[in-house]
Amino acid sequence: MRTLFWVLILCFAMNPDVSAQSSSTQFNLMPMPARMNVGTDQLPITEGFSVAIGGYKEPRLSHAVERFLRGVALRTGLPVRIQVAEVGKATLEIHAERASKHVQDMNEDESYVLDVNGTNAKLSAENPLGILHGLQTFLQLIEITPTGFVARAVHIEDAPRFPWRGLMIDVSRHFIAMDTLKRNVDGMTAAKMNVLHLHLSDNQGFRMESRALPKLVTTGSDGMYYTQEEMRDLIAYARDRGVRVVPEFDMPGHSTSWFVGYPGLSSGPGSYQIERRWGIFDPAMDPTREETYKFLDKFIGEMAEFFPDSYFHIGGDEVNGKQWDQNPKIQQFMRTHNIKNDEALQQYFTLQVEKIVSKHHKIMVGWDEILEPGMPQDIVIQSWRGQDSLAQAAQQGYRGLLSSGYYLDAMTPASQYYAVDPMSNADARLTPEQKKILGGEACMWSEFISDENIESRIWPRAAAIAERLWSPQQIQDVDSMYRRLGAMSLELEQIGLRHRANPELMLARMAGTESASPLRTLARIAEPAGLSVREKEAESAGGIQTSETALNRMVDAVAPESAVARQFTRAVEQFIASNFKDADAEAYIREQLTMWRDNNERLQPLLQSSYLLKEVSPVSQDLSALGAAGLQALDYIDKAQTAPDSWHSQQLAAVQAAVAPTADLTVAVAPTVQKLIDASAVPKR
Amino acid sequence: MRTLFWVLILCFAMNPDVSAQSSSTQFNLMPMPARMNVGTDQLPITEGFSVAIGGYKEPRLSHAVERFLRGVALRTGLPVRIQVAEVGKATLEIHAERASKHVQDMNEDESYVLDVNGTNAKLSAENPLGILHGLQTFLQLIEITPTGFVARAVHIEDAPRFPWRGLMIDVSRHFIAMDTLKRNVDGMTAAKMNVLHLHLSDNQGFRMESRALPKLVTTGSDGMYYTQEEMRDLIAYARDRGVRVVPEFDMPGHSTSWFVGYPGLSSGPGSYQIERRWGIFDPAMDPTREETYKFLDKFIGEMAEFFPDSYFHIGGDEVNGKQWDQNPKIQQFMRTHNIKNDEALQQYFTLQVEKIVSKHHKIMVGWDEILEPGMPQDIVIQSWRGQDSLAQAAQQGYRGLLSSGYYLDAMTPASQYYAVDPMSNADARLTPEQKKILGGEACMWSEFISDENIESRIWPRAAAIAERLWSPQQIQDVDSMYRRLGAMSLELEQIGLRHRANPELMLARMAGTESASPLRTLARIAEPAGLSVREKEAESAGGIQTSETALNRMVDAVAPESAVARQFTRAVEQFIASNFKDADAEAYIREQLTMWRDNNERLQPLLQSSYLLKEVSPVSQDLSALGAAGLQALDYIDKAQTAPDSWHSQQLAAVQAAVAPTADLTVAVAPTVQKLIDASAVPKR
Repeated sequence: MRTLFWVLILCFAMNPDVSAQSSSTQFNLMPMPARMNVGTDQLPITEGFSVAIGGYKEPRLSHAVERFLRGVALRTGLPVRIQVAEVGKATLEIHAERASKHVQDMNEDESYVLDVNGTNAKLSAENPLGILHGLQTFLQLIEITPTGFVARAVHIEDAPRFPWRGLMIDVSRHFIAMDTLKRNVDGMTAAKMNVLHLHLSDNQGFRMESRALPKLVTTGSDGMYYTQEEMRDLIAYARDRGVRVVPEFDMPGHSTSWFVGYPGLSSGPGSYQIERRWGIFDPAMDPTREETYKFLDKFIGEMAEFFPDSYFHIGGDEVNGKQWDQNPKIQQFMRTHNIKNDEALQQYFTLQVEKIVSKHHKIMVGWDEILEPGMPQDIVIQSWRGQDSLAQAAQQGYRGLLSSGYYLDAMTPASQYYAVDPMSNADARLTPEQKKILGGEACMWSEFISDENIESRIWPRAAAIAERLWSPQQIQDVDSMYRRLGAMSLELEQIGLRHRANPELMLARMAGTESASPLRTLARIAEPAGLSVREKEAESAGGIQTSETALNRMVDAVAPESAVARQFTRAVEQFIASNFKDADAEAYIREQLTMWRDNNERLQPLLQSSYLLKEVSPVSQDLSALGAAGLQALDYIDKAQTAPDSWHSQQLAAVQAAVAPTADLTVAVAPTVQKLIDASAVPKR
Repeated sequence: MRTLFWVLILCFAMNPDVSAQSSSTQFNLMPMPARMNVGTDQLPITEGFSVAIGGYKEPRLSHAVERFLRGVALRTGLPVRIQVAEVGKATLEIHAERASKHVQDMNEDESYVLDVNGTNAKLSAENPLGILHGLQTFLQLIEITPTGFVARAVHIEDAPRFPWRGLMIDVSRHFIAMDTLKRNVDGMTAAKMNVLHLHLSDNQGFRMESRALPKLVTTGSDGMYYTQEEMRDLIAYARDRGVRVVPEFDMPGHSTSWFVGYPGLSSGPGSYQIERRWGIFDPAMDPTREETYKFLDKFIGEMAEFFPDSYFHIGGDEVNGKQWDQNPKIQQFMRTHNIKNDEALQQYFTLQVEKIVSKHHKIMVGWDEILEPGMPQDIVIQSWRGQDSLAQAAQQGYRGLLSSGYYLDAMTPASQYYAVDPMSNADARLTPEQKKILGGEACMWSEFISDENIESRIWPRAAAIAERLWSPQQIQDVDSMYRRLGAMSLELEQIGLRHRANPELMLARMAGTESASPLRTLARIAEPAGLSVREKEAESAGGIQTSETALNRMVDAVAPESAVARQFTRAVEQFIASNFKDADAEAYIREQLTMWRDNNERLQPLLQSSYLLKEVSPVSQDLSALGAAGLQALDYIDKAQTAPDSWHSQQLAAVQAAVAPTADLTVAVAPTVQKLIDASAVPKR
């Protein structure tokens, strides 16, 4: 056996990538492991690759190994046998010490140790959860080389920084199909996330079958809900992959859909319809009636028994109190009980609900608003308000989850999520005992999300959040993150996610044809202008966006973040930093600008032929103008001339036009083209 | 109501596309309907679109309507309600007269009539089979316009030309997963094909669970087989979509996998292993022993009961007779019974098997070889040998299916399949009573096919065969076929087929990275050099291709037919036909050639970094040389110079190099570049 030469890689150094003499290329691991040593050997991955299970055995481990072997086959195209091998004869041996808990618990050990040398590999963990994570790491180690597929020799000791690494999906505002949820669980598994939080009810729909209270779905869901059988299957699917399922039923507000079948639960008079609009609405449960708590006891009792997880999310956000203010009986109750305002009334409600949740042996989770004096210390606060709010809760001894800054529907770039750390505000001020921050959750609110485009809004960006929650805090290199995010995106596509395929099909649908390469060029430089723009524009357009509005426009198809713009920006920055001497960068910039300038002419006939594409006609014109402006700027720079002021201000107008939202889109390359324009107007020496 | 102005379109005219004043664009129907009248109105397709079921009702029709509505949602992105509507209130009303048969029969009426006007639509058929087809036609009518999605007003009277429009999939040589089979059924449905013929056993594997004879799969399948439960599910899935499932168990040859568990069934001594190599092998069933027929009676009895279809395929092809010749008992038997050669012995066997098949109430189907004197007239001959063989059988009164010319693994272009007509040789010679040709089957033999790339080998090319079998014989316009095949390809992608997604992922895997645009450029001009080349090269390379060889090379990923090459060829032909005056064509040609010339330099580092890509390095160099040669030819042409002979012959060598198979690939654009080179060498006036 060859002697291994180990190179220690400090993963908590600024750049986590390996670029030492031991290796010519970098690793595509995401999230980055806590500690990794890299050797010089390579383990060949061939069709004979096999896995054995030593130590503790259970069906979940066999499933994991079979899934892993299918993953190896996918990553290599080799006809690997999908079968657990004999101990002592396998390429990779896994070894768990003991079972994990019957119901996956937040406090379980998720760590693993992975050793790969030139001839075989070993993966050990305290329990199957670590094995599941380690197998994902191994898959990401497989790479192609001039001689074959290999996994480089490594010694990895890995464990998550936070125990709660979640993805919340709002299945109420738009219903999301079970298959899509499963694909998202697959994505979470690849990114080592471990909590799928389902926002199962809101004004716009009640999505979970209750047998005790059947009208919740028969009248509150438009027929779009999960049967108990389907949900049981999803829970088992997630459990098999080390993912907990935490249900949320939002109360006392965000609850119109409950009242369609059970109007007596509300604080207002009359009957209710499923809400179709977006926003905060008046209907709220009546906190003053005994019947409300009897109803909730029945419902929570059924759901607490159905969902195995120890945590139960009751929402609790955004109650506007109007129904309470207008109800004389409620006002009377408040006076009688010395409840001085709506916040206090909600606090009263939440305390009652907490008792019910506790009675059914669950720990309550809720949004910021539920944190009021008198709450038991074991509840968990999920913060949508911000890190300060989270730190405050922790200082009061409450455990918390960060979601502020992790809203995927905000369409912000991965780098921005990546920069948000659950501990960044808390760190300095909290004593170790007070460090009660459990982790965080990426949130996919679904006003403008359909079953078709949800994956493209979650992935791959959620993996940047997953890394923030798993890897050491000091891992912060944005370039490395984006490089690995690209590899992750491919991996997700390989395992069947549709974050890239569906948007392509949406483009083809808008075009009514398969060959729409100028349309793709436009789509790749456009980004959604952001949630608030869309909300405003929808209102000002007279028509109002509702849950029944088609989500088949360009803004629904373009990626939240333009990879082309990022690459272009990097080239421009490099070109300017080189004092305009980097010829390769300039050639690339010129090529892009020329393509953009000429794209509009090719694209216009298509845009005019489709009712869905007409609205992006000005965006295409803006891009064309930007291309022309950028090329003129390059010409000034090449000739070492200073662009005249009049020209400069004219071009800035073109940039402004491209940045301003049109069709809810913005031209993502505009600010970078401005850099070129500005650079060309700086007096030359 | 507006008066409709109908324009009669004769679909049996040479060009089936509609380009009259009634319409500015063409229809994307495939297969083309038998008769179609086109109106001037348009039926708007909005979110309110709905379908009602008048007339005969059954669950299959509700399923079909729900699937159809999901199809409308996919094609438009509109939030259409997936729910059967009330009669009289729906946009589209369907009306079947009566039930189809309990087990779908070849002779059932598949016709339908579809009427679309500006306000609603009606689809009528004798039974649900016609409704299923008509719904597919309606989906293909939906198109995007400047004002919204519409279906143009049409009156369609449609019925298939042949009753048997099949796809054979060889699941023995490489196992194909159930999900993949279902996706192929989806594709068949879109193309109005109605028979899925599964080649369930061969030397390389026995894929269908038998409970009476369990060792067939426990020892003969490497664990890769369909359980009865899975197969029952597939049959129901296909039935729901108007597709019959015809099982084939190949005998007496092609049967090594049977003998692993049941060696006594063979004509040779000793034990057997599953065959890993490709070709024709010696093992064959022993036609002389009573036990053989007892075994087959048991097996066929079980399978005949399990598979509901009336037809039962017994293979019967390619018996080399060696085991028979070497077995003294068999030789003795032949002498005793006056059986003079191996063909006669197989005939004896087939007659016995036919009796068993008949006894179990099935009609026997087999390959050409089963046709021997004495066979009952109801058997069906599937011809792999050719149209003559088929015509011959028909003249003897036997019903036949054409498969010769429809082999998808031969990687021939769609236009070639399209030109093959089951009746082309038979037509002239047969009296109407003798026209016993039932249709045909596209055949997907799987020596070099994996679960990963099978869809890219079947689709969209099989749709050209489907059109040949459905549409009037006179529909033969190749350009129209290719245009509609492109739309079909997009439609298939939309409904979930992976014929385009998987090859993209295979490219990324070879490259080890997601961003490999020069690799895509190369892949798009390369075509598999053909089956015989691959077989020969595999042998001469010393290593032998087996069922365990990885199918992850470039040849496994590139499309069977290069769309880029087709487009380029058309441009070059147009340029030459214009006497070199068509400037748009020339600009396009120059752009392509420049890209190809420069591609190799960008691509080489990647090719060298991957063991799977190294072999295509010469292909990339060939393409580069072709690009350069083509550009020089254009320069001669532009300058109205005659290219010198020495240059001309030098360039032809480059063309030869590109055409000659390398890495089992050929550069598909090479012959067209040669046209340019030749044109530049023609003396100018």
